[in-house]
Parts: sequence; structure tokens; C-alpha cells
Amino acid sequence: MKNRFLKIATYSLAILGAWSCKPSADKTASSSFLAGDAAEKVYVKPGTHDEFYNIVSGGFNGQLSVVGLPSGRTLKIIPVFSQFAESGWGYSEETKPMLNTSHGFVPWDDSHHVALSTTKSEHDGRWAFINGNNTPRIARVSLSTFRTEEIIEIPNSGGNHSSPFVTANTEYAVAGTRFSVPPDNKADVPISSFKQNFKGYISFVSIDKTSGRMGIKFQLKTPGVSYDLARAGKGKSAGWFFFSTYNTEQANSLLEVNASQKDKDFILAVNWKKAEEYLAQGKGKKEPAKYAHNVYSEETHSATSTIINEVMTLDPKECPDLLYFMPCPKSPHGCDVDPTGQYIVGSGKLAAVIPVFSFDKMLKAIANKTYDGNFDGIPVLKYDAVLHGEVKKPGLGPLHTEFDGRGNAITSFFVSSELVKWNIEKLEVVDRVPTFYSVGHLSIPGGPTAKPWGKYVVAYNKITKDRYLPTGPELAQSAQLYDISGDKMKLLLDFPTIGEPHYAESIPASLIEKNNKKIFKLEENKHPYVAKGEKETKVVRKGKEVHVYMTSIRSHFSPDNIEGIKLGDVVYFHLTNLEQDWDVPHGFAVRGALNAEILVMPGETSTLKWVPTKVGVTPMYCTDFCSALHQEMQGYIRVSPAGSNVPLTWGTGKNNPSAEAEKNVAKK
Amino acid sequence: MKNRFLKIATYSLAILGAWSCKPSADKTASSSFLAGDAAEKVYVKPGTHDEFYNIVSGGFNGQLSVVGLPSGRTLKIIPVFSQFAESGWGYSEETKPMLNTSHGFVPWDDSHHVALSTTKSEHDGRWAFINGNNTPRIARVSLSTFRTEEIIEIPNSGGNHSSPFVTANTEYAVAGTRFSVPPDNKADVPISSFKQNFKGYISFVSIDKTSGRMGIKFQLKTPGVSYDLARAGKGKSAGWFFFSTYNTEQANSLLEVNASQKDKDFILAVNWKKAEEYLAQGKGKKEPAKYAHNVYSEETHSATSTIINEVMTLDPKECPDLLYFMPCPKSPHGCDVDPTGQYIVGSGKLAAVIPVFSFDKMLKAIANKTYDGNFDGIPVLKYDAVLHGEVKKPGLGPLHTEFDGRGNAITSFFVSSELVKWNIEKLEVVDRVPTFYSVGHLSIPGGPTAKPWGKYVVAYNKITKDRYLPTGPELAQSAQLYDISGDKMKLLLDFPTIGEPHYAESIPASLIEKNNKKIFKLEENKHPYVAKGEKETKVVRKGKEVHVYMTSIRSHFSPDNIEGIKLGDVVYFHLTNLEQDWDVPHGFAVRGALNAEILVMPGETSTLKWVPTKVGVTPMYCTDFCSALHQEMQGYIRVSPAGSNVPLTWGTGKNNPSAEAEKNVAKK
Repeated sequence: MKNRFLKIATYSLAILGAWSCKPSADKTASSSFLAGDAAEKVYVKPGTHDEFYNIVSGGFNGQLSVVGLPSGRTLKIIPVFSQFAESGWGYSEETKPMLNTSHGFVPWDDSHHVALSTTKSEHDGRWAFINGNNTPRIARVSLSTFRTEEIIEIPNSGGNHSSPFVTANTEYAVAGTRFSVPPDNKADVPISSFKQNFKGYISFVSIDKTSGRMGIKFQLKTPGVSYDLARAGKGKSAGWFFFSTYNTEQANSLLEVNASQKDKDFILAVNWKKAEEYLAQGKGKKEPAKYAHNVYSEETHSATSTIINEVMTLDPKECPDLLYFMPCPKSPHGCDVDPTGQYIVGSGKLAAVIPVFSFDKMLKAIANKTYDGNFDGIPVLKYDAVLHGEVKKPGLGPLHTEFDGRGNAITSFFVSSELVKWNIEKLEVVDRVPTFYSVGHLSIPGGPTAKPWGKYVVAYNKITKDRYLPTGPELAQSAQLYDISGDKMKLLLDFPTIGEPHYAESIPASLIEKNNKKIFKLEENKHPYVAKGEKETKVVRKGKEVHVYMTSIRSHFSPDNIEGIKLGDVVYFHLTNLEQDWDVPHGFAVRGALNAEILVMPGETSTLKWVPTKVGVTPMYCTDFCSALHQEMQGYIRVSPAGSNVPLTWGTGKNNPSAEAEKNVAKK
Repeated sequence: MKNRFLKIATYSLAILGAWSCKPSADKTASSSFLAGDAAEKVYVKPGTHDEFYNIVSGGFNGQLSVVGLPSGRTLKIIPVFSQFAESGWGYSEETKPMLNTSHGFVPWDDSHHVALSTTKSEHDGRWAFINGNNTPRIARVSLSTFRTEEIIEIPNSGGNHSSPFVTANTEYAVAGTRFSVPPDNKADVPISSFKQNFKGYISFVSIDKTSGRMGIKFQLKTPGVSYDLARAGKGKSAGWFFFSTYNTEQANSLLEVNASQKDKDFILAVNWKKAEEYLAQGKGKKEPAKYAHNVYSEETHSATSTIINEVMTLDPKECPDLLYFMPCPKSPHGCDVDPTGQYIVGSGKLAAVIPVFSFDKMLKAIANKTYDGNFDGIPVLKYDAVLHGEVKKPGLGPLHTEFDGRGNAITSFFVSSELVKWNIEKLEVVDRVPTFYSVGHLSIPGGPTAKPWGKYVVAYNKITKDRYLPTGPELAQSAQLYDISGDKMKLLLDFPTIGEPHYAESIPASLIEKNNKKIFKLEENKHPYVAKGEKETKVVRKGKEVHVYMTSIRSHFSPDNIEGIKLGDVVYFHLTNLEQDWDVPHGFAVRGALNAEILVMPGETSTLKWVPTKVGVTPMYCTDFCSALHQEMQGYIRVSPAGSNVPLTWGTGKNNPSAEAEKNVAKK
């Protein structure tokens, strides 16, 4: 048996070890419209808007991008897990707590998958969730402010890849560990004891219906395998969640060989409604854990970080009928559920077929206990008993599948670099188009929901090479937009992306733009250091701390002259932007600050911490061109030696503290 | 007199204090092509390339963007002054020194102006220079690797805005201070003593012809005014440099009122060839100063930072015939020199005309001493004597001017939101188009050089409002592309940009792509911790420091299992990417690292510093999807308590140090 596995592995590696099979020729011409037609289809006339928001993970930049479709234009980068000097995210006093973890302040993460909130498995346009893959976390982003509002860390986890996909009514986002690890409280064990000591935790993170507030409701302690992707059930399967697994070989070194041995890995089916019953019955156990929960308040414009010290755990061994494994060929990557909730598609990245599982058959197999043994105590359902059927010869290296809402699935193929459309019921390939090159994820508007808008598909390609003007050794990742409204998929546009886009979701603009927040109301600002008008500005010394209650309005700061700061002081500039009009931010920076700028939206207060390093008169200024007199929006801070007796004074214009002194100087 | 100034100021402020006069209606239809025509003109068919590189400052994000024209697609973000978690810039051990300054490590700056290197005032495609406005610096970026290779700090400066424009043969980049400050070594003075103590330093930074290496050749100690923009002469004026000034009122508070009092400020003409003569004569004085000079080596893939402690200074009072002021109406912003070098255009942002100065007339006025007194000892030339003429009623709020190479100038108008084309010789307006909204800088390919390619102009707008799908309170900055090949300028495309684009230059693709570097040759890698093959990998303990000599190649790390790390250790992962093929980076990250990832290009070595915070087995993995078996590209590091006797072992696959132990475990 082992020899056969090795042969398959060798064959696979021969194909896969290098990049991929490239499309033999640029078939663009044959598979696309005439250039003029395509041009018109992606052209968004100046003054008009895109039709869809495309919310795209930034991958190794740790952020989220907002792209317009069909134009492919990047409308915004939303900072999530990584410090973002542009706006002071992770540098300002208010946002630093957002990046706190049980390890301390982590300035970066790797964001892979977007999950937009749904109601009855349809997009509701409220929130975007995104995973942090490296230091396991889930973030929630408001689609009203386009800001990250909450980040929760996932304990007992090693690479939060299989995340944050949500249940039908956004009851939960999930977090399946990609790298099994020893539980956090039993951690110092030999790596070689993987099979004995490493576990694959899956977390269910509850989401409050109104506020969106997250909490880890429970963790499932499952065998030590790698969870890759996941999807919630829909309709009849809405009480279930499906996770793909690889490395069921439980290897701990050279996984490219050692985790590609078995003919089949698994899709794990989780009956989460059943898990809730077990919790209600008191079957959960609180276990020690340590993780951070960070919440940003729109009222105080500030974040808090709380460390939590225990987590509720369910042990499947004590909770029968909770988990079932469905065998799935060769290291399944994507695990996708069709709009009806009946079909579960497993994309084995080393497999030669695409298996489609039937939810009805799965229930039947469970009822009849049609098992093929168990894996670490969890029943393995018989492959044939749960299979709707296989798509034969679909392509090489299937990764992910989305749905067009017209009975078709579209699957991405990394190795053969193509998108393949196939009929879900008939399991027949109906169309294929090349991608340039090596497509990973794909996105159809509403494609993972019960209500796809099957107009476009975007291919997120892993290899760029010669598609754009060269930019040195490092190239932007590339996306491609196809029209899928007709029988044939047609390439419309290549567009580069920000970071490495893994998964993305697309949603009609109308579902989001109606809730857009343009400003923060000044009267609702509850920041502890707010100044709601220039009369409230002041400078307060508390020992070595100096707090500047400061305002900005076109085109000056108040105060704009400050004296009496001394070396050794720590100065906090709390800047309130008094503007109450859309698109009038002010920025603020101080020469030599060991910090980024702050970019303050209308009605908001934000704080720049500055520890002066030199004696002297230091300029400060507005960093965002705000009016014709923006260049004049500046000020000075005098820093004197420690022990100096220069008094603390401040002001602007006629109230400039130095005005009196100036007269005296002039008289001399 | 003062009353009149005040009246003008009040008038100006009434217009300028709020945003701007918006174009009364969207004139897009009348000023653009039919949509289909425009669509085809900006559509770059999949598989083909853009025609121009547009190298764009990122403004308050501190970076540089590379945009393709006419598509408007962002091809790359080049990290310069700000930490960039995406690639580890400013986080990796090799790049941290690049952000060192005399204040310490500064993680951010505000990059305003791009200057592409020129030979005989024509683009040569070698380097892009960019200024750091906040903590005064100039950076040099290679247009072969698209990486920042050098950053030099500018002492005695407060906001390096009037920078880094270059001389005809890139002999110098300049740095004029925007905020005058007391010299660094005489710094603790009252802010009210501005007129006595604050100075406006201008630095000339020399650039080595071959290596591009920068050094501050000399600083000019000029009166305390604000330098805003600058341009080198060309052709007959190539030995001169021109700087715009504002705040010649020398106000230090509420500048929006107090620096808008005078009817005319100045353009400063600097005879830099003369300065070189004075230096040769020994007229320069070395003065104490402290500034950082940071250089990145492509051979070692590492940066070094050197602190320099003195700077050569020329005092204009001791160097006659070096500097002349030309009066220029109301707070000139842009200061632009036409392709012939004969005309200097000053754009007074509160002025109702555009004055065009004649270089010939300037020389004549200097020869004849046609002075209008002096300003702080520097001769002021008579306005009428140096004026070629004024463009009458051009628009409101002129900011910047570029040239189309066909005898026309195009000027941006912030307040009236338009681009205005006018004939340089005749000073007549020949066309105008609206911008949406409030245009700042503009860019014509080759527009600031002796050889413009007058096909397009890009308007970089300051206000976005309703031009794209809304993204909360914060909106992307917006650019607009116009076709200027015919008599009438025609709007083609709106596209959002990254950060706040101030200035940008555009250059034909052919001048850059031929020099593109695709990989770093492994055999040329001189990093002190390189491993040029898996046989050279090892883990070395030096006290509490652990150095991992590590390699990556599709799809594994070597070593991928490490044991014997203890709490209290500092681990340095020195990762060499063994790939030698274009577009095959590998990323590297460790769970819980208080650091960003590293993104390592083929042939490069990069170092992630990791201070473990917890006992346990910690995953590490490749963060950049590199092959079909990328998900398998991972490893584990075991961290034991301080004082543990777990031996230091490492390996991959069969050489996995735990293999032997595993057998023993299996036997039990």
C-alpha cells in the first residue's frame, strides 16, 4: 500500500513541486470579448460608481482592501492586524490596544479569508470578518465606518487558517487551527510526540446580533490534523459546519512529502446545534487559556484590550454525534457549500477529481452508521455513502469553488491555471478559461451565499510574472475579472491587488452604501481628552506627563505655539478634529517623533504620544492637504533642557503666549 | 498699506477658508470623449502593458507608489520612510537601520515630491528621489530593483518640503526647509524670537554619478521664511536653482492669517555653480550638526546607519552674487521651469495672476543691479525687470505647472478646481477642464524635464467626496487622467490612489523596464548569515542569542524542526531564499512574534528577530503562496523553560532531530 502512495506522491510532486503547468498559450483572444467590448464593460465613467464592493483580504499585509467592480480600482485599505503608518493605526494611543495579544503587542498578521455577515445565508452588509493566520485571531470590521472594531485572539491554536466563515445568521464565526499544536497549558513536549500530544482545536466564536460583539463560545478538541478551509451549511444544513483537513498523516517535518501520503484526507462535519445542546447540558469544561479580546469604541474613539484566562471546551469523546469525518481525496483545500445547502464540494489539491458530497446522504449514512472505521475516535463515514458524485477530469490542482446561482459551480485550478465551470447536479464540465497564472481563490458576488449575483467572477492569481510593467524582483499579486453572465466565461480585465489577496467576497453596492457613515458627530464624542471647541483647548502638566487638549479646523491648530516642555517629558497631543463635513480629515505630526502621524476624521479625537529627544523649537503641522491654506496649518513647540524654568504657556494667534514676550523683544 | 493687505487677506480667506469653489456642474460629458472612446483609451488589454510608469509620492503614508498609465493601476507600493509590515520593511534586522535618524528610529514620514534622475534635464530612468517632509530626509530609490537604497537626514531643517528636485545631470538634489527653525545647535529660544533666531536652511545634496550615493555638500543659511517648492534650471539656466517662499511675514502663529498679509513673497534664485566656486575658495564653514546617513547594500542585503556630526555651511552674507529674490504674488506654491530653461512660473496660491519670469531678464537685472531693496541682506530684484509677463484671469488658487513640450503650460487650480492650459510665449489661456475636486499637483510624462511626452496629464485631487463608492469617513485620494494630445484636454478616467499623492512623475516604460532586476544572484549574496544551500543550514547558540541559518525552496524550510530554544533566548532566523526564478518570493513568520513577517526575494537573505514569550511548540510557515504545496511549507520550534536541558537540535525530514526520539516513543 505504502508503495502506491509513494508513487502517487511522486507523480504529484513532479507536477506540483515546480510552479504549475502554465497555459500553453495566451488564449485571451479566444476566451474574451473583443477589446473594445471588454473595455466598455469594465469602464466606470468618471462621476459614476462601481456596481459591486469587492472586500479582499490583504494576505501577508494583514489588512483588508476595498475594491470596486467591475473597474478593479482599490477604493480603500482598511488596517486590521498590521500597523499602518498612513493613519496611525497601531501607533496612536487609541489603537495600540487593538494589536495586543497574549504574547504582547504584535504589529503584523497574515489575513486570509473574508466572511461578510449574512442573514438567512444572504449578505446583509453589516460586517466583514477576517482571520489572522499567524498569531491566531479574528477581526470584525464595520461596513458602515470601514474600520476594525474588534479583534479576538484564539488560544490553543497554531495558524488560524480555517476561519472566519460564518453561520447562516452570523451566529458564529469559526476558527480551525491549520497547524495542530499541543494545548497551550501542556506545551513543552517533543515535536516528535505530535501524534500523542498535538491537537486540532476548532473554535466557535459567537457574534452578538445587535452589536456584533464577539466571544469564544466553545472550542472543540479534535485530533491533531491541519484544518484548511470551512463553510457553514445553509437551509437544511444550516445547523452544520464543514471543515477540510490535510496532514491526517500527522507529520511534523517535510510536510510537502510526508503530508501527501494518504489517498484520502477528510472533510469534518460539525453539528454545531448539537454542540449547543451539550453546552446547555453542562458538558462543557472551562480550561485554562490566555487570549486577548480587543474592542474599539466609536463613542470614545478608543480601544481597550482585555486578557481572558479560560475557555469553554467540548471534548468530542464525551459528546457523541457531534463530529463525523467524510473521506475526501488528497489534501482538500476548499470546502464549499452550494446555495441550497445540499452539496458540499471538496477540492483535493492533489486530486484528479472533484468530489461532491450530499447532505441528505450524509444524514442517512449517520443514521445508518455507515462507517468506515474511525479516526482517533471520530466516526469516518463511507465515501460512497456520502458522495453525490465526482466531477471527472476537471483540471489539475482544484482549490476553491463558488456558485453562480444558476446551478453551476466554478472551481479554481492552481496547477492547470484555469477556472472551470461545471453543473452541480450533472457533475459535467460546461466551460473552462485560462488564468494568468496559478489561480488561488476566486470570488463571485454572493458566490458563497444562498443568493449569488452571478455576473462576474474574479480570479486571484498567485503568480504575476509578465502581466504588468516590471517592478523589480517583487511583483504585485494579480487578479482577473471575467464576465460569467453568459454561457461562456469571458476575460475582461487584469488588475493588480494590494498585499496577497487570498479570499474575497463581493457584494452589491446597494447593500452597503446606504449605511455609510460620513462623519463622527462631535456632540457624541466621549473621548476622555476631547476638546469640543477652541475654548476647551488647554495644556495640562501631570508630573512628567503633558496633555495637550488640541483642536483642528481649517486651517489652524489650537494651540499652535507651546512653550515649557522639557526633556524627559512625555507629551500627549489629543487632537479633536472640529470639522463636521465629509472628507475633511486633518493629519498631525511632530518632527522627530518616534511614532507615526495620526489622521483624524471629522468629530474624532486621536492621540499622538511624543517623547522629545532634543532641546529646540520643533515644528508640528497638518499632514493632510485640507484647504488652500493647508501649508499654513502649522505650529511650534519649544523644548527646553530638563530643569529649565521656562513656564508652560500655549495659544494661537492673538492669544499666542509669546505675543507679550514678542513686544518685549521688539522694544529692546 | 496694512489695511489693504488685510482686505485682500479677508477676501482670499473668504474664498479659501472653506474648501474651494466646486465646479458648478459635472462637465464631464462636454469635456470628455464619448464613454466608449475613453474606455478604449485607458483599457490595457490583458497580457499587454501600460505605456508609462507613474511614480507617485504616497504623502502621509511615507511611501512611493508605482502606477501604470493609462490604466491607473497601482503596480507596486515601495516602502521608503514608513514601516511596511507587508514585507518587513523597518521590522527586519536588515532594514531597521534605514529608518534611523538623529532622533532615533522613526517609523513614519510624509513623502511629498518625486524627482526622477535626469541627464541633460531628460529622464534617464535610474533613480527616484523622494523627500521626507516631517523628519527632514531625502531617499533614493533604485528603478532597477524598485527598492529604497539610501536615506539621508537633513539637519537644521523643519519640514523638508521644498525637496528633492534635482539639477540637470542629477549633480544635486535639494532640500529647502518649509518651517524655519533655530539652527540645531542654538535651539532653545523663545518662539517669539522667530525673526531674530529662526533660519531657512537650504541643503544641496550631492549625488554620485555612478553609485547614486548621496552626501550633504553644503547648506545655505538663508532668512527665516518658508520654502515651499523648487526647480532646477535647464539649458542656459542649468547652473541655477529656483525656490518658492511664503511666510516672508515671518509669523509664528495662526499663519493662515498672519502669513497671508503681504502682496508679494519671493522666488529665490540660487546660483549653485557660484556656490561651488565659493566652496572651492574655502568660504564654507563646518558647523556642528547631527544627522543620519543610511545605506542599503544589494550585496549584503543589509543596511547600515551612520551618524554624521558636522555640515558644511555657506553664509550668503559672506558670499555675494549667490542668492537673489524675485518678488512673486501672494504665497507662491509651485515654482516650475519650462523645458527650455528660459521661463520660471510662480504659482501664488492666493494670487489672481500667474507670473512668468524670464531667465534672461533676471541675468540682466542682476548685471544692472535693478534692485528693489533687500530682504535680510539678500538683493530683491525688481518685479517688472524680471517678468516675462503675467497670465491674466487664469483661475483661482494656482498651485503647480507642468509643460506639454509643444509650447504650452498646464497649471492646476485648487480653488476653482480645474486644469488650465496656456501658451508660454503668449501668456494666453487656450483651454480649461474641470477637476473633481480641488486639484493639487499634476503630472505630464516628462513634464518637468527638457523632453516632455505630452500625451497625458494626471490631476492629483485633494477632495474625493462622491467620486467612488463610499468607504466611511475616510476616502481614498483621487486622481484623474486627461488626454492632452489634441487641442482640447479630455477627461478619460478617475482612479483612486494610495496614501495622499502629492507630486508624481511619469516616464515612458521603455526607459525603465530594460533595466529591471528580476532576482538577486545567490552566488553574489554576501550576507554574513547566508546559507547558500541546505548543507550550509545550522543553528548556532551564542549565549542567549540563537542564530538559525535557514533556507527556503519550494516547498520546505531547512531546518523545519528546532528544539532546545529556551525562554530568555533571542532567536534570529536568517532566511536565505534559494530560488533563482522571477516572482518566487517566500515569506516567513512565527506565531506570536512581536514583529512583522519577512518577505524574501530569490537569492536574498533576510532576518526575523524573535523573542519567545511562552513555553511551547510554536509553528512557523511560509506566508507567500509559493506552490501547490505551499500549505505544507511549515515547521515547528520547541521553546522550553529557562534552565531546561533540552539539547539544541534541528533538521528537516529524515534529518529531523526528533526522528530518533520518535522511534523510541513508538517502541513504548
